[in-house]
Amino acid sequence: MDKKDTLVPNLGPCSVDSPLDIPQFIDESSRMVIDTIIDVNEKKQAADREPLTFENAGPRKKIFFNPGQIRTAIVTCGGLCPGINNVIKGLFTTLYFQYGVKTVLGIRYGYEGLIPGFGHKFMELSHENTDDIHEKGGSILGSSRGDQDISAMVDTLVRENISVLFTVGGDGTLRGAQRICKEIAKRKLPIAIVGVPKTVDNDLNYMDKTFGFETAVALATEVIRGAHWEARGARDGIGLVKLMGRDAGFICTHSTIASNEVNFCLIPEVPFRMDGSGGLLDALHQRLAKRHHAMITVSEGAGQEFFKEDKKYDSSGNVRYGDIGAYLKGRIMEYFKNTGITPVIKYIDPSYYVRSMPASASDAVFCMMLAQNAVHAGMAGKTGLVVGRWNNLFTYIPIELVVNGRKKVDPNGYLWTMVKQATGQPDMD
Amino acid sequence: MDKKDTLVPNLGPCSVDSPLDIPQFIDESSRMVIDTIIDVNEKKQAADREPLTFENAGPRKKIFFNPGQIRTAIVTCGGLCPGINNVIKGLFTTLYFQYGVKTVLGIRYGYEGLIPGFGHKFMELSHENTDDIHEKGGSILGSSRGDQDISAMVDTLVRENISVLFTVGGDGTLRGAQRICKEIAKRKLPIAIVGVPKTVDNDLNYMDKTFGFETAVALATEVIRGAHWEARGARDGIGLVKLMGRDAGFICTHSTIASNEVNFCLIPEVPFRMDGSGGLLDALHQRLAKRHHAMITVSEGAGQEFFKEDKKYDSSGNVRYGDIGAYLKGRIMEYFKNTGITPVIKYIDPSYYVRSMPASASDAVFCMMLAQNAVHAGMAGKTGLVVGRWNNLFTYIPIELVVNGRKKVDPNGYLWTMVKQATGQPDMD
Amino acid sequence: MDKKDTLVPNLGPCSVDSPLDIPQFIDESSRMVIDTIIDVNEKKQAADREPLTFENAGPRKKIFFNPGQIRTAIVTCGGLCPGINNVIKGLFTTLYFQYGVKTVLGIRYGYEGLIPGFGHKFMELSHENTDDIHEKGGSILGSSRGDQDISAMVDTLVRENISVLFTVGGDGTLRGAQRICKEIAKRKLPIAIVGVPKTVDNDLNYMDKTFGFETAVALATEVIRGAHWEARGARDGIGLVKLMGRDAGFICTHSTIASNEVNFCLIPEVPFRMDGSGGLLDALHQRLAKRHHAMITVSEGAGQEFFKEDKKYDSSGNVRYGDIGAYLKGRIMEYFKNTGITPVIKYIDPSYYVRSMPASASDAVFCMMLAQNAVHAGMAGKTGLVVGRWNNLFTYIPIELVVNGRKKVDPNGYLWTMVKQATGQPDMD
Amino acid sequence: MDKKDTLVPNLGPCSVDSPLDIPQFIDESSRMVIDTIIDVNEKKQAADREPLTFENAGPRKKIFFNPGQIRTAIVTCGGLCPGINNVIKGLFTTLYFQYGVKTVLGIRYGYEGLIPGFGHKFMELSHENTDDIHEKGGSILGSSRGDQDISAMVDTLVRENISVLFTVGGDGTLRGAQRICKEIAKRKLPIAIVGVPKTVDNDLNYMDKTFGFETAVALATEVIRGAHWEARGARDGIGLVKLMGRDAGFICTHSTIASNEVNFCLIPEVPFRMDGSGGLLDALHQRLAKRHHAMITVSEGAGQEFFKEDKKYDSSGNVRYGDIGAYLKGRIMEYFKNTGITPVIKYIDPSYYVRSMPASASDAVFCMMLAQNAVHAGMAGKTGLVVGRWNNLFTYIPIELVVNGRKKVDPNGYLWTMVKQATGQPDMD
Repeated sequence: MDKKDTLVPNLGPCSVDSPLDIPQFIDESSRMVIDTIIDVNEKKQAADREPLTFENAGPRKKIFFNPGQIRTAIVTCGGLCPGINNVIKGLFTTLYFQYGVKTVLGIRYGYEGLIPGFGHKFMELSHENTDDIHEKGGSILGSSRGDQDISAMVDTLVRENISVLFTVGGDGTLRGAQRICKEIAKRKLPIAIVGVPKTVDNDLNYMDKTFGFETAVALATEVIRGAHWEARGARDGIGLVKLMGRDAGFICTHSTIASNEVNFCLIPEVPFRMDGSGGLLDALHQRLAKRHHAMITVSEGAGQEFFKEDKKYDSSGNVRYGDIGAYLKGRIMEYFKNTGITPVIKYIDPSYYVRSMPASASDAVFCMMLAQNAVHAGMAGKTGLVVGRWNNLFTYIPIELVVNGRKKVDPNGYLWTMVKQATGQPDMD
Repeated sequence: MDKKDTLVPNLGPCSVDSPLDIPQFIDESSRMVIDTIIDVNEKKQAADREPLTFENAGPRKKIFFNPGQIRTAIVTCGGLCPGINNVIKGLFTTLYFQYGVKTVLGIRYGYEGLIPGFGHKFMELSHENTDDIHEKGGSILGSSRGDQDISAMVDTLVRENISVLFTVGGDGTLRGAQRICKEIAKRKLPIAIVGVPKTVDNDLNYMDKTFGFETAVALATEVIRGAHWEARGARDGIGLVKLMGRDAGFICTHSTIASNEVNFCLIPEVPFRMDGSGGLLDALHQRLAKRHHAMITVSEGAGQEFFKEDKKYDSSGNVRYGDIGAYLKGRIMEYFKNTGITPVIKYIDPSYYVRSMPASASDAVFCMMLAQNAVHAGMAGKTGLVVGRWNNLFTYIPIELVVNGRKKVDPNGYLWTMVKQATGQPDMD
Repeated sequence: MDKKDTLVPNLGPCSVDSPLDIPQFIDESSRMVIDTIIDVNEKKQAADREPLTFENAGPRKKIFFNPGQIRTAIVTCGGLCPGINNVIKGLFTTLYFQYGVKTVLGIRYGYEGLIPGFGHKFMELSHENTDDIHEKGGSILGSSRGDQDISAMVDTLVRENISVLFTVGGDGTLRGAQRICKEIAKRKLPIAIVGVPKTVDNDLNYMDKTFGFETAVALATEVIRGAHWEARGARDGIGLVKLMGRDAGFICTHSTIASNEVNFCLIPEVPFRMDGSGGLLDALHQRLAKRHHAMITVSEGAGQEFFKEDKKYDSSGNVRYGDIGAYLKGRIMEYFKNTGITPVIKYIDPSYYVRSMPASASDAVFCMMLAQNAVHAGMAGKTGLVVGRWNNLFTYIPIELVVNGRKKVDPNGYLWTMVKQATGQPDMD
Repeated sequence: MDKKDTLVPNLGPCSVDSPLDIPQFIDESSRMVIDTIIDVNEKKQAADREPLTFENAGPRKKIFFNPGQIRTAIVTCGGLCPGINNVIKGLFTTLYFQYGVKTVLGIRYGYEGLIPGFGHKFMELSHENTDDIHEKGGSILGSSRGDQDISAMVDTLVRENISVLFTVGGDGTLRGAQRICKEIAKRKLPIAIVGVPKTVDNDLNYMDKTFGFETAVALATEVIRGAHWEARGARDGIGLVKLMGRDAGFICTHSTIASNEVNFCLIPEVPFRMDGSGGLLDALHQRLAKRHHAMITVSEGAGQEFFKEDKKYDSSGNVRYGDIGAYLKGRIMEYFKNTGITPVIKYIDPSYYVRSMPASASDAVFCMMLAQNAVHAGMAGKTGLVVGRWNNLFTYIPIELVVNGRKKVDPNGYLWTMVKQATGQPDMD
C-alpha cells in the first residue's frame, strides 16, 4: 500500500455550505496514522518517513450536494446481521432531519431492487416507517445475495435521479459497489456510492470491528453455555456448536474466550488433522476418558480441506462450504465405535437465530455513528469508499483497500494464544 | 377410571411425628375433585355420584420414616429440561434442612447410576455442591435414556440402604419407577419411590403443567421472532422452526400464539397433507404469492406418517422419529422448482439450546413446590406416585394413571382454535 | 356467597348466529365447581348440596349483538403492568377479524378519555396500529388513575354509540365499571361492560392469576440477584429491594422463593416488629454478625402501621402509603450506630422498571386467552362481569364478587411456609 | 506530558525465562503512538518530532520474578462494576495455570483487607472457588471505599511475602496504589503493584474504554426503554432516569443514543439552567404541550451547581453529590403547579441494579485480556502502572498519567453532537 491507495475519490470540489449547526467540522487535511506501533530502536526510520494515513470521517463545512434538491437511496445486501435496521434508521434520520434531504428511498431485496425486471418497488423511508425499526432484527428492506447487471443498476440510479447510494453489505456487496463506481465514472455521472461495511464475521480489512459482531458473540456465548450443559448432562456428552465465520474465526474465538467452557475451538485459520495421534479425534478421546464430557466450537469455514473432493458453487459463484458440523459429528460417532465410549453428541447450529436478533446497545451506538459518517461522506461528494473504524476513530477508506484481503485470526498472535489457554487444546495440525 | 385407581399406595401406617414446625398439615382425608366442569341441566347426576378425587399433596403430621435415620437418593433421567437442578436443590434442601435427613445421594447419569457395572459413583449432595445450581441449566447429576435391569437396581437400593428414591423423569422414567415399585413390593421392602414428572413437552396425563415448559415456550418464542426476521429479510423467505413435541404440540402452539408471527403451525395431533389443492405446499404457495414471506413452526413429532416406510428404533425401543424439519425443507424446495418462486428457507432447530437453559422465575417457584411436595410424600411412606398439579393444586397421583395415556392438543378445542386464528392457516388434511 | 351471586348479568336473550367458524361452542349450562377440595370423611355434605359454580367462559353459538353493526371500545386504567398491549391487541383482533366488528375505539388515558372536558381524542384501532404492540411495554392507549363522573361517561358511550366497552384495570377500575353498569341499567341501555382484570400484584379475588404477574416476578428476581451481589460486595452489605404489592405480598414471596438468596421477606399480610428482642433489627444484627451480609425484600404495603401518625391520601382518596423502603433504610442505619457494625445499605426500588416491560411468552398467551374470552362475553351481551381464570379454566364472574375482597398470602398457608424455609427468617411479630 | 512521563517503572532487570510456551513475545522496544491524528498540511512538525508513545502490553521473554517461588494477591476496591469477577478469574488462571504461580491470595473488602485491625482473612484462590465466578455479578472478594494507612498495608505485603499486588479499582484506588508504590520504593522492596482500571463511568484518562461500561450501557438502555413506556402511559408522563456518571456523562450519552427515545440528556460536562426562557423547565413545558410525554436521562454528577450551598463530604473526603434526580423531580412538580399541566413523573434510579450484573460477552473477553496483560506486567517486574487499552491496543501506562485528569464528554465534540441530534434538545445554559 502506498499513500495514493489511501485517498478516497470524490465527485468534485465542495461549494455548498453544510446545513449542520454544529460546533466542529472535520478538516480535509486531518488524517489518522494507520500503523501505530513503532520500534523505538529504529527511530531513524520513524522520523524519515511520513507515515501512511487514512482520512478522518466526519461532517465537512463545505459539501458537494445541495441537500434540499437530491434524492438518495439505501440498499442492504447479503446475509442478515444484527444492526442493519439501526444503520438504515441512522442513515435516514441524518439525511432527513440533519441535512434536510427530502427523499430517502429504500431499495428492496439487495441489488435485485435496482433491476427493474424483478419488479420490487422502492419503499420511501419516513419517520413513521423507521421509528422503531432499531428494536427489530433483520432488514426492513430485505436483502439478497449475488451480483446483478452493473449497467442496468446504474441506469436505474440515473432514471430515478439518485445522487447518493448507500450500500450496506460485505465483501461481495463492496465489490459490486466498486463496479458501480467504475461505471459511474465511465459515464461521468455525479453519483456517490458510499459503503457501510457489514459482516457479522468481523473480517474486513482495516476495520477495528464491524457492526453486529458483538451482538453475535453475546448470543453465541449463550448458546455455548447451553451446549456445555447438554454435554455435562450425559456421560461422554459432547456439545458441538457451529458458528458463523466463513474465512475468519473471530466469532468462534471470542465466544470461546467469553464462555470459558470450550475444550476445542476450530477455526479456518488454524488447520487441524482429524486422524492419527495428536489429531482431533485422539485429543477428544483423551478428554472424554478423563472428564467424560467435552465442548467443541467450530467456525463454518474451518476444516474445508476435508471437502476438497466435492467442491460446489452457489449461484453467486462462491464456493459452497461443506457442513463441517455434520462432518465432525459423523466422524466422531464413527471413530468411537468399538472404543468402549459411546459419546452423546448434541450438535447446535444457531447461525440463523444469532444473526437475526436486534443489535445490542453498544452495537446500536456504533451503527448510528457509522450511519452518520456515511452520510457526511456522501453529502461531501466522496465516493467509492467504505466508512470504517480504525484505531478507534471513524475513517473513510477506498473500497479497493477493504476488498483487497481479509482480516484473519493470526495463529501466532495474541487472540489465538488466549484461545489455546482458555481451552487447553493441543496443536492438532 | 374408578375411585380405586386414584388411591396412592403407601408402605404402611405413619407413626413418626413430623419434625416440621409449621402451622398447617394436610389431612389424609382432604382430596380434590378431578372433574370440575358440570352441566347444571343434569343436576341429578351431580348430586347422586360421589365425585372422583385425587389426594392433596403436602406435609403430613405423622410420617413413616424416621428422618434422622434414613438415606435417600435422587436420579434424573431422559432429556434435559429447564429446572432439573431446581428440583434437585429443592429435594435436597427440604430433606436436609426441613426434615433433617442426613444423607441425600445423587445418582449419576440416570438409571445407569444404579447399575454397578457402569462404574458411576454416587455424588453426596451438600449445601456447598447445590447452593447455586438453580442458576445453571442441565442436570448436575447427568442423565441417560433407556431401561436398566430392574432387579439389579433394587439390589443397589438395598445394598446402599436407600429408603426413598426420587425419580425425576418423563413417561419412560415413570414406567421404570413403576417396575421398580413392583419389584420392591414383591420383595416386601420398606422403600418408597416418588416420581417428579419431567417433560418439556408438557404432555403428561393429569398434570396442569410440567416444569420447564414455560421456560421452553419463552425461548422458542424468541427463536421464532428471529426466524420471522430471517423470513422477511429475503424475497420469498421462509422461516422454519422445529420445536420439541414428540407426541404433543404444546410448545409449538403456545409459542405460535405468543409470537403472533407464524403462518403455519404443524403439530402431531393435527394431520396435514403436503400435496394437492389445500395441502401445505399449495397453501404456502398462496401465502408467498401474496406476501413474499412465510413463517412455519413444526413439532418434531408432526407429520410422522410421511416416514412410514423407514421406521427406525433407538436403543430404548422407541421409534426414532423422522426429521420432519429436513423433510419439509426438502419438499418445499422441490415443489417450488419451476414455479417462478425461489424460496429462501432458513431452517432452525433450537431444541438443544432451549432445553438446556436455566429455569425462568415462575418455573423455579414451581420446581421448588414440586420438590417439597415430593419429599412430603416420600417421608410419609407414599410410593408408586407422581407429584403433580391439577386444577392449580398440588396432588399425589398413582404412577399408573399418569403413564396410561398422554395429554394432547385437542383439534376441536380452544387452544387449536386460537392457533388457527393466530396463523390464519386453513385445514390441510 | 350463594348461588345467585355467581350469576353473570346479561342484556337479554341471544338471537344472532355467531359468525365464528369453530368446532365447539360453550353451552350456557356448562359451569365449573368453585371449591374443589373436599373432605372425604364428610361425604354426606358433599352429596347433599349442589356445589357453587362459575360460568364457563368461551364462544356462544347464539350472540346478542350483530357484529357488523356495532361500535366497541377499550379503556385501560390504573398503573402499568406487563401485557396491557397484548390484551388490547387480542381484543382488537378477536373483535375485528373473528367477529367482524368494524369499529374498535381506543379510549385515551383511562376513564378520563370518556369525559369530553379532557379533550382526549379516541384512537381508532387497526391492524396497522396494533400489529407489533405486543412487543412493547406500557399501554398504547395511555392510562390514568381515579374516578370520573359516571353519568358523563355513560353519556359518551351513548353519544358515540358504543355497544361494548372493555375495561382493563384493577380493583378501582372494576368498581368504576360496576357503577357504569348500574347507570346503564337505570337508563335501560343495551350496552355491555366487560372487565379484563389487571393487577400486577395478583391479588384479585377468584382469580388464579392475573396477567403480568409472572413477568413481574421474573424481573423482580433478576433485580434481587443483583442486590444480593451488591450485599455480598461490601462487608456488612445489606441489599434492600422494595417490590410491588400494596395489599398482598405475592410478587415479594414468589421472587424470594425463585431467587433463593433472600434472608428477610416482609409483606403486608405478616406483621413484624422493628424493635426489641426478636424484632427485625435484632434478627438483622444476628445475621450480619454471623454472615456479614443480608438480603431483604419488602412489599410496598408492608409495615404500614409504622406510618399511622401521618396518613395521607391521594387524589382518588386512596391512602398514600408510607415509603417502607426508605423507612427501613433509615431505621437500620440508626440502629447500627455504635454497634461496631457499619452496614452498607443498597436500596433498590425497581417498580417502574418492572411494570413497564413487555409480557413474557406465557403472559402473552394468557393475555390473548383473556382477551378472546372477554370478546365472547361482550358479543353474547353479558355485562357487569370480569373474565378470569379459576382452577385453570376461563370463567365469567360478576364484578361484585371480584371487588368484594382480595386475595392474600395466608400467613398459615403453604406459600408463606415456603418463604420462611427459603429465608430462614424467624417470626418477628 | 513528555516522553519521560510515559515510561513505566520497573523493579530491575529481567533474567528469568518466561515459562509461557507461546509463539510471540512482546519486545520492550515496541511502543505505540499516542496521538494518531495528524494534520497533513503541517508535515514538517510530524517529521521533526519523535512522537510520544506508550509501552505495548504483553508477555515478555525474560521476566523478573521466578513464578514458582512467589506469592501474589488481588484486591478489589470501590463500587461494583460488571466484570470484576472476570478480572479476578483471569488474573488467577493466568498466574496459576500459565505462569505456575502457586499462591494467589484474594484480599477481602478492598484495602481494608490489608489492615490487620479489620480482621478480614485472606481467601486463597483456587480453580474450585473461581471456576464459575465469571457468571456472577459483584466481586467475590468484596470491596470497600476509602483510604487506609499506607505503611500498614506495605507491612502486610512484607509480612505475607507478597511479590505482586493487583489492585482492581478506579481513580481513588489508583492513587492509593501510587502511594503504596512510593512507600515500597522508599523501603527498596521488590514488590510490584499493578493496577487494573475499573470505572463503570468509563472516564479514565488514556483508556479507550474500561470494563463493565458496555454492559452498563446495555442495561441502562433497557431501563430507559421501560421509563419511556411509563412516560407514554400517562398524559403528560415524564420518565426520569438517573444513571451513573459522577464526573462524566458517558453512560448517559451512550444509552441515550442507543435507546433513541430520550428528549433531554443532562450530563456533568454540559451545564444547564433550570429557570427562565430556554431553561430546562421551559423546554420541558414546550415538549409536554406538544407531545404530552417526555423522557429525561441525567448523570448523577449533572447539575451539581444547584447544591452549592450545602456541600457534604463522605468518609473518604469526596464531595457527597446532591441527588439531582430527586431535585429535578421536585423542581418539575413545583414548576407545573398552576400551568394547567399535571405531569406524572416516574423517577427511576437503576444504578445498583446495573452495576451488579454479570459482564456481557464482549466485556468478558475484554476483562480476560486486561487480566492477562496485568499478569505479564507483574511477572516482568513492572510496577506503578495501569493496564489499559489505547487505540485498540493493550498498553502499560504509569499510574500518574492516568490519575492526572479525567476523560470527559467534549461539549463541542462528536458524541455530544449526536446526543443533541438524537434528543432534539436545545442548548439550555
